[in-house]
Amino acid sequence: MRILRFDHHGTPDIGIALGDEIVPLSSLPGDPLPVSIRGVIEGGPAVLADIAHRLMAVPASARLPMTDVRTLMPIPDPGKVVCLGLNYAKHAKEGGHEVPDYPSMFLRCTTSLIDPGAPMVVPRCSERLDYEAELMVVIGKRCRYVPESEALDAVFGYTLFNDGSVRDYQRRTAQWTAGKNFDGTGPVGPWIVTADELPPGADGLRIRSLVNGQVMQDANTNTMLFNVARTIAIVSEIMTLEPGDMIATGTPEGVGHARNPPVWLRPGDMVTVEVERVGSLTCPVVADVEAAVPEAV
Amino acid sequence: MRILRFDHHGTPDIGIALGDEIVPLSSLPGDPLPVSIRGVIEGGPAVLADIAHRLMAVPASARLPMTDVRTLMPIPDPGKVVCLGLNYAKHAKEGGHEVPDYPSMFLRCTTSLIDPGAPMVVPRCSERLDYEAELMVVIGKRCRYVPESEALDAVFGYTLFNDGSVRDYQRRTAQWTAGKNFDGTGPVGPWIVTADELPPGADGLRIRSLVNGQVMQDANTNTMLFNVARTIAIVSEIMTLEPGDMIATGTPEGVGHARNPPVWLRPGDMVTVEVERVGSLTCPVVADVEAAVPEAV
Repeated sequence: MRILRFDHHGTPDIGIALGDEIVPLSSLPGDPLPVSIRGVIEGGPAVLADIAHRLMAVPASARLPMTDVRTLMPIPDPGKVVCLGLNYAKHAKEGGHEVPDYPSMFLRCTTSLIDPGAPMVVPRCSERLDYEAELMVVIGKRCRYVPESEALDAVFGYTLFNDGSVRDYQRRTAQWTAGKNFDGTGPVGPWIVTADELPPGADGLRIRSLVNGQVMQDANTNTMLFNVARTIAIVSEIMTLEPGDMIATGTPEGVGHARNPPVWLRPGDMVTVEVERVGSLTCPVVADVEAAVPEAV
Repeated sequence: MRILRFDHHGTPDIGIALGDEIVPLSSLPGDPLPVSIRGVIEGGPAVLADIAHRLMAVPASARLPMTDVRTLMPIPDPGKVVCLGLNYAKHAKEGGHEVPDYPSMFLRCTTSLIDPGAPMVVPRCSERLDYEAELMVVIGKRCRYVPESEALDAVFGYTLFNDGSVRDYQRRTAQWTAGKNFDGTGPVGPWIVTADELPPGADGLRIRSLVNGQVMQDANTNTMLFNVARTIAIVSEIMTLEPGDMIATGTPEGVGHARNPPVWLRPGDMVTVEVERVGSLTCPVVADVEAAVPEAV
């Protein structure tokens, strides 16, 4: 099932994507369903089964054409977004790093995330905005100390992420966090594909990025150094994972800063992240031209 | 004004600390006031002035003894917690780092934060839990690209933070995030002192930590490399700050891992963070003995 959040003529809603159409959950006959994707996640398999059952009874008139809506970040308020760096060996090498025996982690805050299709913003203070195609794991249940053998039980589904990175700020100190948290640099979406629709751990899927239609990254999730199950085991040794938390699983080789000459995202570019069987996430790139006026208290 | 969140016989509430007593906001005569500290922050100076005015009319019977309540994290769901590393020159040196010309940043997720007085947890996988006394800035308004000269206008107030760090995980890769985000390692509180009660930028205040009553860190906020105003200018160049966001301003010299021999927090220890005129934050240290059973979906 592909579950998504969308804006239809100004009204936000959640629904299920069926081909090129959407069935709003609010249109399903019967008792009210959760109004947020986190609510659906917390409802567990019973809610998903209920939705699947009720979908069969939906009249065609309740479906919206996908082109009629604006898709939104599936979970606008994730408790946390844990990101892995250097999780593909060739990407580690292209950045001058050793192949690691433990994943590098950083967090992204919500203000850095944007809706699918929303513009990625080249900040005022840097011209070095780079793309990173990533598979994003959406956590399905509260868990800690999860053994690798049970870790995939904690996954609700998968979405796409462009881990937009401002490279000079990322490397201004040893900590990458600054360069990974600029406003408007992290599109997420356009939907969450539930785990049952993909191979275990979303393994063996082609992952690509394209800038203006030109393929920049082209790899396979089976070349991750720490696969999804191992990643969840490692992260949950540190912290409790909660429904709606997300884990970005790192990007493969081919990023812009490692190219010769480097490729930076420029206003007017279109950048796409694709993962086979998950979908495609395309955003325009714009310059940051907003006025710098803090709101008065 | 010292504003706090607390639990009184099972009922969470917010209030104002007056000496050793608390006036619950819910007990103030007149129209209902915000029920969360974030709500108070978003209300701006008018709400604070209203509270101050109404406090004068409160009968003594409405006051609760501080000893009757359990204080809680002032803001349980901050949008983000940005932390500075290496923001005191002597601390940078004791860790083997150069004195930086730009602050090292990392984020802490909410699952790592705990109430004031709640136990700090030595994780199962490490014995290297360390304390870090920090002044925590609480942001008062939504802002981006704030000039240093106006940055203090964005501050609502200050609280205390112990940036509990699992040192072997902090240094397992170049990214500190893993070691900074263990469950139950980051006490925040016990209250927020509004900015008007402190010197601009909380400058010139003694900051200390004590373990079992022994002073481990003893410095002054005027030795920060990046003071509060400069920090807000730097962070807001990257990201929009929002009401209730917090910025931890780094810790001074004297942490446990830099001592010879190193000092690690052990179950049974009591660890205190103090900042002059802000308050004192004391927590016991416990071992992590919970069972590793992920909840069933």
